[in-house]
Amino acid sequence: MFLTRTEYDRGVNTFSPEGRLFQVEYAIEAIKLGSTAIGLKTKEGVVLAVEKRITSTLLEPSSVEKVMEIDEHIGCAMSGLIADARTLVEHARVETQNHRFSYGEPMTVESTTQALCDLALRFGEGDEESMSRPFGVSLLIAGHDEHGPSLYYTDPSGTFWQCNAKAIGSGSEGADSTLQEQYNKDLTLKEAEAIALSILKQVMEEKVTPNNVDIAKVAPTYHLYTPAEVEEVISRL
Amino acid sequence: MFLTRTEYDRGVNTFSPEGRLFQVEYAIEAIKLGSTAIGLKTKEGVVLAVEKRITSTLLEPSSVEKVMEIDEHIGCAMSGLIADARTLVEHARVETQNHRFSYGEPMTVESTTQALCDLALRFGEGDEESMSRPFGVSLLIAGHDEHGPSLYYTDPSGTFWQCNAKAIGSGSEGADSTLQEQYNKDLTLKEAEAIALSILKQVMEEKVTPNNVDIAKVAPTYHLYTPAEVEEVISRL
Amino acid sequence: MFLTRTEYDRGVNTFSPEGRLFQVEYAIEAIKLGSTAIGLKTKEGVVLAVEKRITSTLLEPSSVEKVMEIDEHIGCAMSGLIADARTLVEHARVETQNHRFSYGEPMTVESTTQALCDLALRFGEGDEESMSRPFGVSLLIAGHDEHGPSLYYTDPSGTFWQCNAKAIGSGSEGADSTLQEQYNKDLTLKEAEAIALSILKQVMEEKVTPNNVDIAKVAPTYHLYTPAEVEEVISRL
Amino acid sequence: MFLTRTEYDRGVNTFSPEGRLFQVEYAIEAIKLGSTAIGLKTKEGVVLAVEKRITSTLLEPSSVEKVMEIDEHIGCAMSGLIADARTLVEHARVETQNHRFSYGEPMTVESTTQALCDLALRFGEGDEESMSRPFGVSLLIAGHDEHGPSLYYTDPSGTFWQCNAKAIGSGSEGADSTLQEQYNKDLTLKEAEAIALSILKQVMEEKVTPNNVDIAKVAPTYHLYTPAEVEEVISRL
Amino acid sequence: MFLTRTEYDRGVNTFSPEGRLFQVEYAIEAIKLGSTAIGLKTKEGVVLAVEKRITSTLLEPSSVEKVMEIDEHIGCAMSGLIADARTLVEHARVETQNHRFSYGEPMTVESTTQALCDLALRFGEGDEESMSRPFGVSLLIAGHDEHGPSLYYTDPSGTFWQCNAKAIGSGSEGADSTLQEQYNKDLTLKEAEAIALSILKQVMEEKVTPNNVDIAKVAPTYHLYTPAEVEEVISRL
Amino acid sequence: MFLTRTEYDRGVNTFSPEGRLFQVEYAIEAIKLGSTAIGLKTKEGVVLAVEKRITSTLLEPSSVEKVMEIDEHIGCAMSGLIADARTLVEHARVETQNHRFSYGEPMTVESTTQALCDLALRFGEGDEESMSRPFGVSLLIAGHDEHGPSLYYTDPSGTFWQCNAKAIGSGSEGADSTLQEQYNKDLTLKEAEAIALSILKQVMEEKVTPNNVDIAKVAPTYHLYTPAEVEEVISRL
Amino acid sequence: MFLTRTEYDRGVNTFSPEGRLFQVEYAIEAIKLGSTAIGLKTKEGVVLAVEKRITSTLLEPSSVEKVMEIDEHIGCAMSGLIADARTLVEHARVETQNHRFSYGEPMTVESTTQALCDLALRFGEGDEESMSRPFGVSLLIAGHDEHGPSLYYTDPSGTFWQCNAKAIGSGSEGADSTLQEQYNKDLTLKEAEAIALSILKQVMEEKVTPNNVDIAKVAPTYHLYTPAEVEEVISRL
Repeated sequence: MFLTRTEYDRGVNTFSPEGRLFQVEYAIEAIKLGSTAIGLKTKEGVVLAVEKRITSTLLEPSSVEKVMEIDEHIGCAMSGLIADARTLVEHARVETQNHRFSYGEPMTVESTTQALCDLALRFGEGDEESMSRPFGVSLLIAGHDEHGPSLYYTDPSGTFWQCNAKAIGSGSEGADSTLQEQYNKDLTLKEAEAIALSILKQVMEEKVTPNNVDIAKVAPTYHLYTPAEVEEVISRL
Repeated sequence: MFLTRTEYDRGVNTFSPEGRLFQVEYAIEAIKLGSTAIGLKTKEGVVLAVEKRITSTLLEPSSVEKVMEIDEHIGCAMSGLIADARTLVEHARVETQNHRFSYGEPMTVESTTQALCDLALRFGEGDEESMSRPFGVSLLIAGHDEHGPSLYYTDPSGTFWQCNAKAIGSGSEGADSTLQEQYNKDLTLKEAEAIALSILKQVMEEKVTPNNVDIAKVAPTYHLYTPAEVEEVISRL
Repeated sequence: MFLTRTEYDRGVNTFSPEGRLFQVEYAIEAIKLGSTAIGLKTKEGVVLAVEKRITSTLLEPSSVEKVMEIDEHIGCAMSGLIADARTLVEHARVETQNHRFSYGEPMTVESTTQALCDLALRFGEGDEESMSRPFGVSLLIAGHDEHGPSLYYTDPSGTFWQCNAKAIGSGSEGADSTLQEQYNKDLTLKEAEAIALSILKQVMEEKVTPNNVDIAKVAPTYHLYTPAEVEEVISRL
Repeated sequence: MFLTRTEYDRGVNTFSPEGRLFQVEYAIEAIKLGSTAIGLKTKEGVVLAVEKRITSTLLEPSSVEKVMEIDEHIGCAMSGLIADARTLVEHARVETQNHRFSYGEPMTVESTTQALCDLALRFGEGDEESMSRPFGVSLLIAGHDEHGPSLYYTDPSGTFWQCNAKAIGSGSEGADSTLQEQYNKDLTLKEAEAIALSILKQVMEEKVTPNNVDIAKVAPTYHLYTPAEVEEVISRL
Repeated sequence: MFLTRTEYDRGVNTFSPEGRLFQVEYAIEAIKLGSTAIGLKTKEGVVLAVEKRITSTLLEPSSVEKVMEIDEHIGCAMSGLIADARTLVEHARVETQNHRFSYGEPMTVESTTQALCDLALRFGEGDEESMSRPFGVSLLIAGHDEHGPSLYYTDPSGTFWQCNAKAIGSGSEGADSTLQEQYNKDLTLKEAEAIALSILKQVMEEKVTPNNVDIAKVAPTYHLYTPAEVEEVISRL
Repeated sequence: MFLTRTEYDRGVNTFSPEGRLFQVEYAIEAIKLGSTAIGLKTKEGVVLAVEKRITSTLLEPSSVEKVMEIDEHIGCAMSGLIADARTLVEHARVETQNHRFSYGEPMTVESTTQALCDLALRFGEGDEESMSRPFGVSLLIAGHDEHGPSLYYTDPSGTFWQCNAKAIGSGSEGADSTLQEQYNKDLTLKEAEAIALSILKQVMEEKVTPNNVDIAKVAPTYHLYTPAEVEEVISRL
Repeated sequence: MFLTRTEYDRGVNTFSPEGRLFQVEYAIEAIKLGSTAIGLKTKEGVVLAVEKRITSTLLEPSSVEKVMEIDEHIGCAMSGLIADARTLVEHARVETQNHRFSYGEPMTVESTTQALCDLALRFGEGDEESMSRPFGVSLLIAGHDEHGPSLYYTDPSGTFWQCNAKAIGSGSEGADSTLQEQYNKDLTLKEAEAIALSILKQVMEEKVTPNNVDIAKVAPTYHLYTPAEVEEVISRL
């Protein structure tokens, strides 16, 4: 009886009898295997910090890009499949550049996030821009626009939420608890840097160094920390 | 015997032997897992109230948009998949703007609802605008046009009904019973606000606060209540 | 042996070994679950009457449209999926308007019916206008043109028949028997109204009121009865 | 062993291991369920006669069109799915009109038949004009052109044959035997009418009346018999 | 183990693990069920002879076309599905006409054969001209061009061979043996006619008459024998 | 466990869990059933020799083309499906002609080979030029350009290698061993002819005659040996 | 229970329940069967060395291209399917030429790598440039641009990393360990050549000769070593 039902609803992007979308749920599993990334919003700007998982000393640490600039006022941290993240970010870069060109002003952070999620939602539809499967990546999008600093969190379903602080990736569960304890809206950017890095330190099973973490801020423009700047934050822990 | 029949009618959007469309029924299941939303029509205008389900204190409550403006005279409340709702609403926004541009007057609430449902009906067809599965979302569409205030209810099958009052989402069954008892056409907008919120209060398992509910009205233009305005309604319960 | 045969003929719109089209038959099942609709042709014009199935006092009865105008000289009653019916009717409205525009005269009732059936026949073909499944709806199309009044009946296979009287939907079997007994070509429009409503009364398990039935006539133009006019017919039973 | 072979040749329009096309064979089954139609060629012209199967006295007999005009010099009788036949005939009407327009003379009967069969052959190919399954209909095409009267028989495979006389539909087997006994090339049109109707009379399980049979001739132009003309033939039996 | 392999290579036009194309092999089976056709090349020209299988005296023998003209210098005999053969021949006719129009001279027999085989090879590819399955037909193509007379044999795989003599269809095995015994390059056209017909006579289980065989020659232009000419050949046996 | 994995990677052109492409491997099987072909490169030019497998004395040996000219400076020998080889060769002919037209000079042998392999690689992709399955053919491509004589070997995967000598088809294993023993770079063209033919003689189970082998050379232009020239080589063995 | 889940997520490019992409993983298996390639970055430039696996003395070693030039400042070494690598390299060549033409300057090594990976990521999507399966190849891309020398490593998932040194193919595991021991940033190009070749020597089961390895450098332009230059490096081991 049950089996015959399933005959009527096959496909990559279809509901199960309980109203679930399995491919999206499986893509979320892919992120649970990913490296940890953390974002915190302060009044001075937004901080992003990521674990880099350099598996070999032969790899150039700076080439493992898990924090990326989208536009000069927007950056993002990722967890999940790197190639998928690059595609989404490249799409967002084109959108923000087009917006600047057409309207002579930067795109808002929310519109940029919505543009990313539109692409993520429409997987399995065979048109030119969409993928044949969900994007296996979550993003923390940090930005600064006319509404001040903001932090968005997106998942593979194409849904996004605005957050004060958020962790994604394999260590996100513990990291989120710690963030809930330590976060408040009056943190300074300096304090936020330290909280982010101290949480990454707990999550990672090795010593934190400028080689295996990246920190970036949008305050009010995107800046990726130099090794020396990362070292300075580590020294404050 | 029965099995061989099923060979002749596979596909996402096909009838079962009993004349049913399973993907649509499963999408309706998705809505039964969604947060509760309530709408009431009064002579003064229409009230929408939704439960927001903020799972973490790190999320910005205002970014969990479950009540959205479509045009200045139309708003809607949603239950189900947020990303699907955003796509439908965005489609409706384009339609209403195009209508204003082409005809110099606002689109009627019914035409707007029909436009949303046309998109919802045609899933699984592979053309540019449609999805490869049903939209997993129900909407309560509140509006005000030349026919006065109106409230529409849509489901994933692309069907819509005009209502005086309606609840959708996980708490809809109990909420609808209460609405049938308490609704009458002579309610004031203020009374409708209080009924909507008192029903949400029963459904939600936590204290009602400006952080976990949203209220909006179309009377005759769309207005999303500020936290202070929500607080004022709560205080009247 | 038999199983291997079925390997050669899969698809939504394919014949079974006995020469049957199951998706069409299943769609016909969907109509057997639908509300009852009745049409009668008289020399004065055609009468349509439908059961509305208002499941909740919260719904606006007038929004449950099961009788619809196609052009000023053509109307139809439906049974089955409401959203499918709206699509077919919208298609027919465009066709009749285009015809008036191109030829400066109304489209005949038969051509309008043929246009509806062309769309219904071509399901599963992936071109722009067709659906990926049969339309789950039957229509009674009433009209008046240079050949006088006429009544057509269409089913999900895209076939149509001209009738003197016809019932569709869950109560159609009993209703058709009664129609065969009571119908004759010399009925007045007033008598036809009464017969239609008395049959609906038998079929429905509740009291007939202006809220749960709709009546329309094409004599020679489409007119949907007001609640008062429906009340007047009820009073004559 | 055998099962794995079938993996290499699935599809609606594919050969079975024995070199058979099952969908075409199943469509032929659909015709065996259809009403009976008969055609006879005489030197004076061609006669077509069909059983109409009026299942309800509520149906308008004249709307059950099983004999149709294609062009003024060509008509056809059908057995099988009515909606499919209408599509083929409509296609043929467009072809013959285009031919008249382009060349200023009528299309020959054979070219018209070939055009119909071209459409029938190409099912399952997804281009604009073709169906996604075979047309479930057989036709007897009667015409008169520069080569004199002619009668063609088509089946769902897109094959056609020229005949002197032919029966199709559920009663075709018995009817064909009788035709072989009674047919000769020197029959008058009047004799052919009587033979056709007497065979239909054997096949149908009810009394033959102008309501349940249709007769048409192409001699040399298409003419559908009026009820009085049918009555006259009946009286001669 | 073996089953899981087959998962990687499904489709209508794919290789089996042994390097075979089953749909093509099944189409060849379809031809083994077909009527027998024979071709012989002589210095004077090429002779084609086919069995017509008239199943009913009601059929017009001349309409069962199993020998067809492609261009005035090329003809062909077929075995297998008649409708498929007509499509291939129609394609070849267009090609040869286009060639005459573009280059002002007839297309060679080999180029014509290649054009037919190109179409046959590309089945299952979904572009406009190709079929969704192999063409279920073999052809004997007889022609006369600047290289003198020639005879080609094509099969459903789109392969062709030049022959001196060849038989196709259900009786081809026995017929080929007889041809190998009796054929030599110095046969006259008259002798070739007699050999072809005497072989058909062995194969067919009924008396050979002008009604159940067709003979054609290309010497150097295509000519279909009249019944009298066929009778004359029969009389010589 | 294993079975469920296979659900994620079906298709004609997909990897198996071991990293294999089965359709390509099966196509290679098709070639193992094919006739044997041999190529040898000398300083004077390249020799190609093929077995022709004339199954019937009725076939015209010269029409079984297993050695073909691509351009005046390039020829090829094939093993596998003849119709597939013709398609590839026709594609290469168009490419080399276009190259001559655009650049006024012959295409190099390597570029021609690459063009053939590009087409072979992209099977199963549904665009206009590609096949829905791998090409079931291997080629030995002999040519002469500004780099002197060259010999390439291609397989169904779209890979090619430059060789000094190579055998393909059912007898290739033994033939390759013999070639490795007997080949050296200082062979004369005459010696290469004799080696090629002596190997074919071992492989074929019948006497070598001008009827059942073909020899061609590119030295520096393509030349297919006449029967007399073949006879001359045979006489030297 | 589990089986029914898999019904909702079939396809070549879809996630498994654990969040994995099997086709990509299988393609990576294809590379584990491939020949070994090694790259090392020094301040003077980048060295690439590959094993050639000449299976027959009949093959021209120089035609087994496993090191290829992309642009004059970029080269790459490959492991996996040769035909796939050629397609990717050809795509990159077109991209770098277009870039030079449009901007009048060479494309950076990272942009070139990104362009290659964009193509690799989008398999299974049916658009013109993408493959219907992952590219079964890994590349080591060596280049020199305004940022100095660089070495990138790509895999079939479309992901890339910048490296100081890296080995790919069947011997990569052992080779990577050795590289980690022996690599340092101050190596000279000469030392890097020797390390690369000594590692290949360990991996290959035969004697290293100019016939079975290729060496290339980008310093700052691409140069493929002549046999004499390879011999010179061998002599230094």
